[in-house]
Amino acid sequence: MVTEQEVRESLKGVLVPEVKRSLVMLNLVRGVTISGKRVNITLASTALAEETQDWIRTETKAVVGKLPKVSEVEVEFTQVKPSELNQFGHILAVMSGKGGVGKSLIAGLTSVALKRQGYEVGILDADITGPSIPKMFGITTRPSGNDTGILPVISKSGIEIMSINLLLPSEDDAVIWRGPLISKAITQFWEDVLWGKLDYLVVDLPPGTADAALTVTQTLPISGIIITFTPQDLTTMIVRKAISMARQMDKPILGVVENMSYLYVPEIDKRIELFGKSKGEEMAKAARAPLLGQLPIDPELARLCDEGTIERYNSDAFAAMTQTLTRTLSQTMSAKAK
Amino acid sequence: MVTEQEVRESLKGVLVPEVKRSLVMLNLVRGVTISGKRVNITLASTALAEETQDWIRTETKAVVGKLPKVSEVEVEFTQVKPSELNQFGHILAVMSGKGGVGKSLIAGLTSVALKRQGYEVGILDADITGPSIPKMFGITTRPSGNDTGILPVISKSGIEIMSINLLLPSEDDAVIWRGPLISKAITQFWEDVLWGKLDYLVVDLPPGTADAALTVTQTLPISGIIITFTPQDLTTMIVRKAISMARQMDKPILGVVENMSYLYVPEIDKRIELFGKSKGEEMAKAARAPLLGQLPIDPELARLCDEGTIERYNSDAFAAMTQTLTRTLSQTMSAKAK
Repeated sequence: MVTEQEVRESLKGVLVPEVKRSLVMLNLVRGVTISGKRVNITLASTALAEETQDWIRTETKAVVGKLPKVSEVEVEFTQVKPSELNQFGHILAVMSGKGGVGKSLIAGLTSVALKRQGYEVGILDADITGPSIPKMFGITTRPSGNDTGILPVISKSGIEIMSINLLLPSEDDAVIWRGPLISKAITQFWEDVLWGKLDYLVVDLPPGTADAALTVTQTLPISGIIITFTPQDLTTMIVRKAISMARQMDKPILGVVENMSYLYVPEIDKRIELFGKSKGEEMAKAARAPLLGQLPIDPELARLCDEGTIERYNSDAFAAMTQTLTRTLSQTMSAKAK
Repeated sequence: MVTEQEVRESLKGVLVPEVKRSLVMLNLVRGVTISGKRVNITLASTALAEETQDWIRTETKAVVGKLPKVSEVEVEFTQVKPSELNQFGHILAVMSGKGGVGKSLIAGLTSVALKRQGYEVGILDADITGPSIPKMFGITTRPSGNDTGILPVISKSGIEIMSINLLLPSEDDAVIWRGPLISKAITQFWEDVLWGKLDYLVVDLPPGTADAALTVTQTLPISGIIITFTPQDLTTMIVRKAISMARQMDKPILGVVENMSYLYVPEIDKRIELFGKSKGEEMAKAARAPLLGQLPIDPELARLCDEGTIERYNSDAFAAMTQTLTRTLSQTMSAKAK
């Protein structure tokens, strides 16, 4: 007789077309029962259009039907809430309190770094009034879904992304909302999006310590916060407010990243500290967390972000940050139960 | 007999010690009656401690008593709400939608430029969770006041400033508030602060198009909005959201300012466009408003802001911006009734 293990393994080959992720990774396989040569498979229909369900049924029958010792395959769908299907290894929130210091950039680069190391990664863009993530990743596709759930959009390298900007008629449209609506949008991205199984969900927070930051820290089981800053005193003062918030909300700070640390001018082979001396050590101390990296102002990175190709970025500073991040994650995160 | 005019003129010499502004500029003189050699003066006691009222009474009697044809001076105080005393020539809001593009910097520099030209200027820091203005101006004094009103704090060059950071026990403290409280704080800065008579009140908005921006545009009679941006596509996309909000709220855009336009490297006598080609013309067109200025990244300015001495700043780009701003203000604002 075929084993459940073999059936489930084969279902890894059935991809949901909209997101190019398998039934298994989306956690849609709810049950497999085997009686002799007959296999019954129950799938969640969450966020799937009827045509997609038909397509998946046919595909599943074909794939499982090819297994040895299987002669009949039945597929049935059942309704399950996205939040019951979602499984996250770790949830990282990128925060700074101050705007324009590179939260979205660090959220994006962190996700790219983790994805390159083979992890399954998603980004929840919690910046409802100033969403930058889709542009950085060159994504304009409207998420598909229905009243049972919404599917995230997939980036070129396979990162799942959900952002309010994917839902607006035009990317220039303003979201003129007061706090409760903003909190509701974030809660929906958390509860109604079918993220499936992810090793890491990275949350890009807006500036400030108001509704969005509050909702994320209160609603999502954050494993760690990454604090971003630039070396200006003015900035670090406000970033200290974010550190103070993280403490008050009792969320661990995973590390700090200094952005716009310096500019390298090749013509004179010199680093210019545009915004003053590095505050890396100082901020790491204030946050009682390691300094994960120091990224320079890099016109090449600015260009890639504007072109929507952040996933192509490579630099020594980024490589160094990736290494420290990975080491820190494996140290900190393994100390906790998943 | 002495004239009311002469009495009022003399009261310009009586300064409220906490703010070093005169009774007249604070609009505290509510009535002057003259009968023979006797002068009765009614002053608003708004935001004044009892000792200050005593001091002002003595000072007023001395100053007015010195006028020819005056032998007796009576001073009485009356309670008036700050909002009944405040008079603003024009209210300018600095907005961008995006964080970290230099809203506070442009709000600060705009105020410095107007002050240097002899105008009475105040800054309302509406960025409740990320207030930068006090640090930039090197202000740490706690505002004085009581339940009848709050006095703003005065900068070195005489700009009135009100910010949540002046009211916090420590400048690092986080203000972890949801929208309604943020709106309330802004409304209080508007209604409960004794600004007195100002030619210009400059409002520094936080990033985003949520509660703070909504409250300011709905509550304050904004004369014009200054839109700030940096030349990154990513930024201009979000700044377009702010432009779209200004339109929807039916507030005129006075002009746009490009910040971090380039970096001048003296060693190679070259301008480096760190964040891409200038978007000045493009954004001016999008906002249907003039380009007021293009400021480079200037390490000197960053240093002054960190030291709290922004009022000392001078540069060609700033001088050019000041000129265009003044011209635009005199053109646009004179077209409207005060």
